[in-house]
Amino acid sequence: MINKKMQGLGAKRSVIRELFEYGKIRKAEIGEENVFDFSLGNPSVPAPDCVNENLVKLLNESDPISVHGYTSAQGDANVRQSIIEYVNKTHSVEYSKDCLYMTVGAAAALTCSLTALVNQGEEVIVLAPYFPEYKVFIERCGGVVREVLCDQVTFQPDFDKLEKAINKNTAAIIINSPNNPTGAVISKENVQKLCDMFQNAQERYSKPIYIICDEPYRELVYGDVKVAFVPKFYNNTIVCYSYSKSLSIPGERIGYVLVSPKVDSFLEVYQAICGAGRALGFVCAPSLLQKVLPYCLGKTSDVDVYDTNRKLLLKKLTEYGFTAVKPDGAFYLFLKSPVEDAYEFCERAKQFEIIFVPSDDFGCKGYVRISYCVTTEQIEKSLPAFKKLAESYNLI
Amino acid sequence: MINKKMQGLGAKRSVIRELFEYGKIRKAEIGEENVFDFSLGNPSVPAPDCVNENLVKLLNESDPISVHGYTSAQGDANVRQSIIEYVNKTHSVEYSKDCLYMTVGAAAALTCSLTALVNQGEEVIVLAPYFPEYKVFIERCGGVVREVLCDQVTFQPDFDKLEKAINKNTAAIIINSPNNPTGAVISKENVQKLCDMFQNAQERYSKPIYIICDEPYRELVYGDVKVAFVPKFYNNTIVCYSYSKSLSIPGERIGYVLVSPKVDSFLEVYQAICGAGRALGFVCAPSLLQKVLPYCLGKTSDVDVYDTNRKLLLKKLTEYGFTAVKPDGAFYLFLKSPVEDAYEFCERAKQFEIIFVPSDDFGCKGYVRISYCVTTEQIEKSLPAFKKLAESYNLI
Repeated sequence: MINKKMQGLGAKRSVIRELFEYGKIRKAEIGEENVFDFSLGNPSVPAPDCVNENLVKLLNESDPISVHGYTSAQGDANVRQSIIEYVNKTHSVEYSKDCLYMTVGAAAALTCSLTALVNQGEEVIVLAPYFPEYKVFIERCGGVVREVLCDQVTFQPDFDKLEKAINKNTAAIIINSPNNPTGAVISKENVQKLCDMFQNAQERYSKPIYIICDEPYRELVYGDVKVAFVPKFYNNTIVCYSYSKSLSIPGERIGYVLVSPKVDSFLEVYQAICGAGRALGFVCAPSLLQKVLPYCLGKTSDVDVYDTNRKLLLKKLTEYGFTAVKPDGAFYLFLKSPVEDAYEFCERAKQFEIIFVPSDDFGCKGYVRISYCVTTEQIEKSLPAFKKLAESYNLI
Repeated sequence: MINKKMQGLGAKRSVIRELFEYGKIRKAEIGEENVFDFSLGNPSVPAPDCVNENLVKLLNESDPISVHGYTSAQGDANVRQSIIEYVNKTHSVEYSKDCLYMTVGAAAALTCSLTALVNQGEEVIVLAPYFPEYKVFIERCGGVVREVLCDQVTFQPDFDKLEKAINKNTAAIIINSPNNPTGAVISKENVQKLCDMFQNAQERYSKPIYIICDEPYRELVYGDVKVAFVPKFYNNTIVCYSYSKSLSIPGERIGYVLVSPKVDSFLEVYQAICGAGRALGFVCAPSLLQKVLPYCLGKTSDVDVYDTNRKLLLKKLTEYGFTAVKPDGAFYLFLKSPVEDAYEFCERAKQFEIIFVPSDDFGCKGYVRISYCVTTEQIEKSLPAFKKLAESYNLI
């Protein structure tokens, strides 16, 4: 018989996808330029030149068999060596390439890590609001999601709530900084505090509790904001990284798991992640895309566009009377709904041809997520519509 | 705590990988040309020109954002349309693109299908000898492997044994034709017989039982051998396909699931497969590789090399006194071990610098698998060693 859970997941598109599909239909009806679609986190700036230039070079100049051949399951050894050297230089650490397991993007990095580290019935803490697929990934491997709402002003962790959520069944916490959907970056002080709290919990329960860092937005930070490198604060850290956003190649599915060499029983943890990748059917991360990474380390797409958009949107929407969290990273603005029900706010916005996503599915009510990874021109053209939306609520 | 099953899978390399690693070390010791390595099913002929030419064209001429962008989870609509038109033309059917779900290779196609269709404790029949990862995939989603040994002369299904294996807990059977490791292709008559048997079983137990066809070797057949298209024989058929072998791009991880439109509750089955893909962390199949497929449909690498190797090996090894199954497809020769223990035979072969894989892990004792996806020159150079090996057993 069909697995009903899986069918449910396939039948029910995420709210984000529903709104994206609505936007496509609406664009066909009234013209692309007349719909202000902020639904999807699809990068709007092209990949840096190093990506395509070196892909072409690899295709033209490499051995034609090995360039498309299987790599080892952990990923090509030279690729992992290049990446770890970049990690070492960036964070002043001395890790070996054998900490890295190349994956088919960050989603795969998360499913491999969770499958490796979470047993039936164990709890995984997520800091709400959070990327809704975490719930899907955790539940698929038999884990239980434990939501802990962040502070509703700063969107930093609420440590009182967090302390209460940790218990003997806690296997791990996922942190996502910069955060989707708020754009918040956990401050260094709060990373330290969080790690201290989990260190105590590990001692209290005499077992490892893993901090899983989902970091696809690591390079997308603005001003002088820094993203703490958690393995320096806490031994039992697993980093899940993706090049989707930094290199604007989300469809290519390339990323990695970095297992801190200080993790308890390092070899067993690393083996379990490899075993999970094998059992889930990953075989290896796409070969050509692995091999282009050494040529692109430290490079990013032009994130200035996102910063321009961020400033413009924040300034104007605040002027119009809306309240928003100032994002330090990623490309999302988390806007407070002027009415309690964020779905109602989204429906009203549609009347002005603005599409954004209600926060409910992110585990936090009363907000909407605006993905500003669009052109600045699109932002500018949407402002009169946002103004009318504000007027309709008498905010202005 | 670490998931012990996953750790076990990561810690224990497959026997194939172990032998491959041994081969690498041995080559470093005595020179590449002196080791006759037949361990791995890694294609030895380059991808046809259409692959790299069109990858370069896509990189140089496409919209730089969309070429690397997310596709829909099912796969790019234009890509699926092109593939299904090719399927329709090839097999005289009239399917829609919405039967296809693009995957990260055949392994992913299998894990998505099994996760969608197998519930805890249900049985999945595999015809031994079989690709060892089937067991890993089935057990990961809570299924139970039911091995049914093939006829030991023809390596066609043994229908008496098969009939006895089907019961009320049977959820599916995986068939793999052309077969890894024997190269056997299930004849049209036997496909019909197998489908009739499962049709009866479905009626007897009043439930769907799925035939999952793992077909990475579909195009690798020799002479006038034809591979039956099972959806024409049986409604509840799921085809798992990969371009790894036909286009010699195994590291790129690109393939698909084709759900027969005649499957019972088609929409639910298709949705369950999409849901499984989502829950396992696949997001979408690699975008650039999806987009090159329409330019490569119906094209294959030069399989004549494999045919030459097949004939040469079969002729010579038979001359030397060995017994082998004549392979009709794939690029494997299944050789009978002259001693009961195939491991012992493999160890003896190593003394002559020949590396091949014992059949035990394929669920069938007393044989070895010789992967002849190497250059013909490598085969020729190995023949004196094979002769000595035969002499050591007094076969000659």
